[in-house]
Amino acid sequence: MSSTFGDNLKLSIFGQSHGPGIGMVLDGIPAGLAVDLPQLQRFLDRRAPGQGAYATARHEADTPEFLSGILDGFTCGAPIAALIRNTDTRSGDYANLADCPRPGHGDYTAQVKYGGFQDAAGGGHFSGRLTAPVCIAGGLCLQWLAFSGIRIGAHILDIAGLADEPFDPVSPALSRVSPDFPVISSQAGAQMQSRIADAKRDGDSVGGIIQCAVTGLPAGIGEPMFGGVEGHLSRILFGIPAVKGVEFGSGFTAAHMTGSQHNDPFTMEDGQVRTVTNHAGGILGGITDGMPVIFQVAVKPTPSISQPQQSVSLRQGCSAPLQVKGRHDACIVPRAVPVVEAAAAIAIMDLILGNTQTTRRK
Amino acid sequence: MSSTFGDNLKLSIFGQSHGPGIGMVLDGIPAGLAVDLPQLQRFLDRRAPGQGAYATARHEADTPEFLSGILDGFTCGAPIAALIRNTDTRSGDYANLADCPRPGHGDYTAQVKYGGFQDAAGGGHFSGRLTAPVCIAGGLCLQWLAFSGIRIGAHILDIAGLADEPFDPVSPALSRVSPDFPVISSQAGAQMQSRIADAKRDGDSVGGIIQCAVTGLPAGIGEPMFGGVEGHLSRILFGIPAVKGVEFGSGFTAAHMTGSQHNDPFTMEDGQVRTVTNHAGGILGGITDGMPVIFQVAVKPTPSISQPQQSVSLRQGCSAPLQVKGRHDACIVPRAVPVVEAAAAIAIMDLILGNTQTTRRK
Amino acid sequence: MSSTFGDNLKLSIFGQSHGPGIGMVLDGIPAGLAVDLPQLQRFLDRRAPGQGAYATARHEADTPEFLSGILDGFTCGAPIAALIRNTDTRSGDYANLADCPRPGHGDYTAQVKYGGFQDAAGGGHFSGRLTAPVCIAGGLCLQWLAFSGIRIGAHILDIAGLADEPFDPVSPALSRVSPDFPVISSQAGAQMQSRIADAKRDGDSVGGIIQCAVTGLPAGIGEPMFGGVEGHLSRILFGIPAVKGVEFGSGFTAAHMTGSQHNDPFTMEDGQVRTVTNHAGGILGGITDGMPVIFQVAVKPTPSISQPQQSVSLRQGCSAPLQVKGRHDACIVPRAVPVVEAAAAIAIMDLILGNTQTTRRK
Amino acid sequence: MSSTFGDNLKLSIFGQSHGPGIGMVLDGIPAGLAVDLPQLQRFLDRRAPGQGAYATARHEADTPEFLSGILDGFTCGAPIAALIRNTDTRSGDYANLADCPRPGHGDYTAQVKYGGFQDAAGGGHFSGRLTAPVCIAGGLCLQWLAFSGIRIGAHILDIAGLADEPFDPVSPALSRVSPDFPVISSQAGAQMQSRIADAKRDGDSVGGIIQCAVTGLPAGIGEPMFGGVEGHLSRILFGIPAVKGVEFGSGFTAAHMTGSQHNDPFTMEDGQVRTVTNHAGGILGGITDGMPVIFQVAVKPTPSISQPQQSVSLRQGCSAPLQVKGRHDACIVPRAVPVVEAAAAIAIMDLILGNTQTTRRK
Repeated sequence: MSSTFGDNLKLSIFGQSHGPGIGMVLDGIPAGLAVDLPQLQRFLDRRAPGQGAYATARHEADTPEFLSGILDGFTCGAPIAALIRNTDTRSGDYANLADCPRPGHGDYTAQVKYGGFQDAAGGGHFSGRLTAPVCIAGGLCLQWLAFSGIRIGAHILDIAGLADEPFDPVSPALSRVSPDFPVISSQAGAQMQSRIADAKRDGDSVGGIIQCAVTGLPAGIGEPMFGGVEGHLSRILFGIPAVKGVEFGSGFTAAHMTGSQHNDPFTMEDGQVRTVTNHAGGILGGITDGMPVIFQVAVKPTPSISQPQQSVSLRQGCSAPLQVKGRHDACIVPRAVPVVEAAAAIAIMDLILGNTQTTRRK
Repeated sequence: MSSTFGDNLKLSIFGQSHGPGIGMVLDGIPAGLAVDLPQLQRFLDRRAPGQGAYATARHEADTPEFLSGILDGFTCGAPIAALIRNTDTRSGDYANLADCPRPGHGDYTAQVKYGGFQDAAGGGHFSGRLTAPVCIAGGLCLQWLAFSGIRIGAHILDIAGLADEPFDPVSPALSRVSPDFPVISSQAGAQMQSRIADAKRDGDSVGGIIQCAVTGLPAGIGEPMFGGVEGHLSRILFGIPAVKGVEFGSGFTAAHMTGSQHNDPFTMEDGQVRTVTNHAGGILGGITDGMPVIFQVAVKPTPSISQPQQSVSLRQGCSAPLQVKGRHDACIVPRAVPVVEAAAAIAIMDLILGNTQTTRRK
Repeated sequence: MSSTFGDNLKLSIFGQSHGPGIGMVLDGIPAGLAVDLPQLQRFLDRRAPGQGAYATARHEADTPEFLSGILDGFTCGAPIAALIRNTDTRSGDYANLADCPRPGHGDYTAQVKYGGFQDAAGGGHFSGRLTAPVCIAGGLCLQWLAFSGIRIGAHILDIAGLADEPFDPVSPALSRVSPDFPVISSQAGAQMQSRIADAKRDGDSVGGIIQCAVTGLPAGIGEPMFGGVEGHLSRILFGIPAVKGVEFGSGFTAAHMTGSQHNDPFTMEDGQVRTVTNHAGGILGGITDGMPVIFQVAVKPTPSISQPQQSVSLRQGCSAPLQVKGRHDACIVPRAVPVVEAAAAIAIMDLILGNTQTTRRK
Repeated sequence: MSSTFGDNLKLSIFGQSHGPGIGMVLDGIPAGLAVDLPQLQRFLDRRAPGQGAYATARHEADTPEFLSGILDGFTCGAPIAALIRNTDTRSGDYANLADCPRPGHGDYTAQVKYGGFQDAAGGGHFSGRLTAPVCIAGGLCLQWLAFSGIRIGAHILDIAGLADEPFDPVSPALSRVSPDFPVISSQAGAQMQSRIADAKRDGDSVGGIIQCAVTGLPAGIGEPMFGGVEGHLSRILFGIPAVKGVEFGSGFTAAHMTGSQHNDPFTMEDGQVRTVTNHAGGILGGITDGMPVIFQVAVKPTPSISQPQQSVSLRQGCSAPLQVKGRHDACIVPRAVPVVEAAAAIAIMDLILGNTQTTRRK
């Protein structure tokens, strides 16, 4: 529980936003994986702060130091530990939060749970900054998956009602997502960036939806009931701060469809079973059916806004106005895109490593 | 993984739709809980088949036999095992499915995963019938939670676009849900039932959305990151067949809101911290904030429809038409309502039992 | 925790000695295993009560009913559930135990832990009878392991200081163990049986040591540190009632050896790496080295003896004499032999299913 | 699995003997524990190398840097991460080991498991050096346990047949263990040190037995069957390199006792249930009975000896002589004493945090 994840691949995340450092231990990654560190760094850079008008002004290199598990460029079978030092911190900005919790944040629940001993600065262990070690782990998993032809890509499907072109669920073109601002339609991307800039100017924030596709997965991955792909993915996805919804394939839209519309007809293509449509998002009975796994993640608007808000003084037991200071993203959706990819990679690799093998075929 | 769930309360589900029996083992329930068996049976009856025009014609009592764990009306600390015998089965209806999988069902993925050895009759272990033992476990957890003043209630929020009145997220009136057809607005309920009857007549099916509320939960339940309430609940909820989406509070709607709209202002009420609105669904940073936990679950339309569909013959490696026989619900949403309550009860009780206690308060 | 075991193969045990029934759910066994039920029954019969002068007079068939997971003679991939009904019970023998706990038994600790709600009859969930479902699970695992050439056999190494011939640790001849009384030396067996009869006559009991060998295991099974073969095996072995010690290879004897005596020299045999001796018990660094895995298990004397003993009255808070009635084995070691084999089979199969695969070789 | 341990308190160990650093993440430790860092350092110093004639000549400060989880001297509820940099390494000593494995070491099994990619230097992740982070975690747990009056102490019971005075199992005097060389009898200690010096001079090594006592534990801790105290403790104890046996109370000696000798009579003492003797080692039915928990751990002689040994050349596929170089302890038992205490503290605290609470008492 808590900040650990995985049944076969075991991830343990540590750190607070303004403590000495953040990092992760990843236990169970097989030996012999060639680790491409520059590629990993490029992946981490997609999440890093300070990348444009829409992001926080906090600047940190976020280059991990690997403390174990990698030898001469290959995984050696031992747990991989990585550390990112916190360098650019301003804990003074947060002095008041233990008494006067920020609406929409974990300040109040941490106060209740940890009895006042929690590290409140910058959200402490609840900070979005903790997604950096998730990306280290996920970036390594992505490299392992790529060796088996499995690829994971995400894009912004929606920000504040402005919609990108969705993936073709039968054949998602991951390469069409722009490397700069992660959308397929550059026009939609420009509108979104403009909308984020407006929110920033207003001292407000906006939320959005991220769509992710996993291609190259064979049929048969996942277990029935509570071991299904949906449940396993959702558990890690809800571990990303600000995620409030997860749906697979047609998801909530399926509630408005009939069975005859929603059922994906089977067909044979080059001797392979495929489905004509992919409302199921590549998952039937919790198990992959060989079609792309497609899912959407709802991200709430950043709770840290500079507009005056109503809070309470816990010490005085009365209402109290609050004005949040500090540097915050007006929209975290763009930076959350690689985090969703990383989380998916960790969960999928964990499922593959633990996949029950049939003893033989009838 | 697979058909087990829980970190502190350990649930193991067994059985196939048309095998000798289905059941569950629930390990970790504390000793000394007075078990109200008639109340449990009434809870199970809400899920049972054969309850009206919208449900399958299959009739089974679904009365569990308790094999262990209950002594003289109280839990005794040992694992609780319960068995429901399968009595009314017609496995002949399903003879063809191993070759010609039903679209939208787990027939094909089971065939790939289990190499032809799976029990295909009635969906085998993937059958919705396996939600009966989930309800036994959940019904026991509901009784344990009720002793601490925690209540869980769900209703149909939407079927095929026909919407019920939603719960007031700040103060959900669980008692307003009708015991007959689980909606708040009887008018909406009548429309839904009519829509289901239409689908049945057309040999089709419809999906829907279930909304669930948990009241009486203290603040501070749940762990950060991957141990959060959202992730834990979603893992078990996606274990319910046909669930394709889970969202908390405003969920996907949050993607279209600004931070100033979505953030729930804190206030003091009778010396207690409360929020004025509840867009967060009672969860901040993965941890309960003392407000009702509210979530929605998307249920896809029943894949078993009697209209002709396109499938494949796995043996012959070519397309093949399919007409599904057997008795099927034109909409499983009404029967899934208590299953959602049961699943939520199991996950919440598991979180409470494993809740990290603060050593002391500052 | 508690009555569940396994990371990949998940075992859940249920039942009380004198409740309606006992049984198990085994989740994660791969599909396609041909189950030889008569062979399984012969394995269970080795543990069954009523098998000679040394065993309890309680007679029960202990034939499991399989409720799920087996179809047409093969595992179908779904969890396997099995139930044994309790038929021959005499709960009146145990009426006094909740007040006056038996020395050496779990009566008192159960009373403290479960607050008086525990099922005290016959030891309830703590009874040695609960090893019957362990043997069902283990018997299935033994059949799965046999397909890969892995065999597990145990014998009584010592009862009350009377020693059997030990296994040759380099090449243990499992077939030399007698099917009647599980020893290699029939002379030692006769002495042991005589010693047990003496104890029975005296209203007393004796303990012993079981030695177990696993042959055919490839090198490389097990994980470093807490995932090692020794730790995994010991966890399940200590789950067998009355087990108080577990050692691998030379075990406690190694404490009296020098490194030059204890280190097993490597050698090449038919192109295979082998060791000349096997003080390590087939495990180096927690991981199998390809030699037989050998371990010993200490079993305490049965605590249920008919001699008068000193106990306390919990209700009155004072010392109280106790005379235990009922039918009890004067030595459970012979019946524990197949239980040790079963437990080892479950742990070994779990390790094999979860074995981390190297991505490639240098 | 692998290098992680714990159900409620989650420990993850990382590092290789000669990599950049070693360390641990401990997730689940409650907030509000005052951490006494000087006391922790004194505990770590007991395990540190370079402490006398019997230990390795490798000198390292082994002072951990805490990266997270501690704020202003108190645990803050977030995972605690600690790092020890490796400074004094001589990897050249180990260049040959990948081809020519050391008898009694994990070199060969690591080679098989990790396909040649493992970090062979100094045993890599299998090195005894990895017990330093176990001691960091255990040292923190010891401080948490001490707040509830629970104390853990160990001593050398035996080295090469030279025996220390054992703990009184009913009332072990932990304070009688010498802080310099961890024995009760200074005469036995002198003999042991002399025996170790002899082994060192001979280029050989010796093994031994460690006895550990846990006092102050309330009755009722632990779960039945596989969740028992013995199984949980043994799993972590076998994770300590060189441990080959674990026994509780009378352990293997119980095999030579009768029930009337072994059963511990109950008695009342100041209104408390106690046992007159403690052959059970404080555990009945897997659950603590309120008496001290006593156990012994067998430690094999250090496999690294400088005498010539027989090994194989894996590359050439033939026998090959081996002379191990490098600095090694002629006996690791003294340094393993605090490691056993640390491991016990972690397992006991994990059990306490996960202890099932009875809903109420009859």
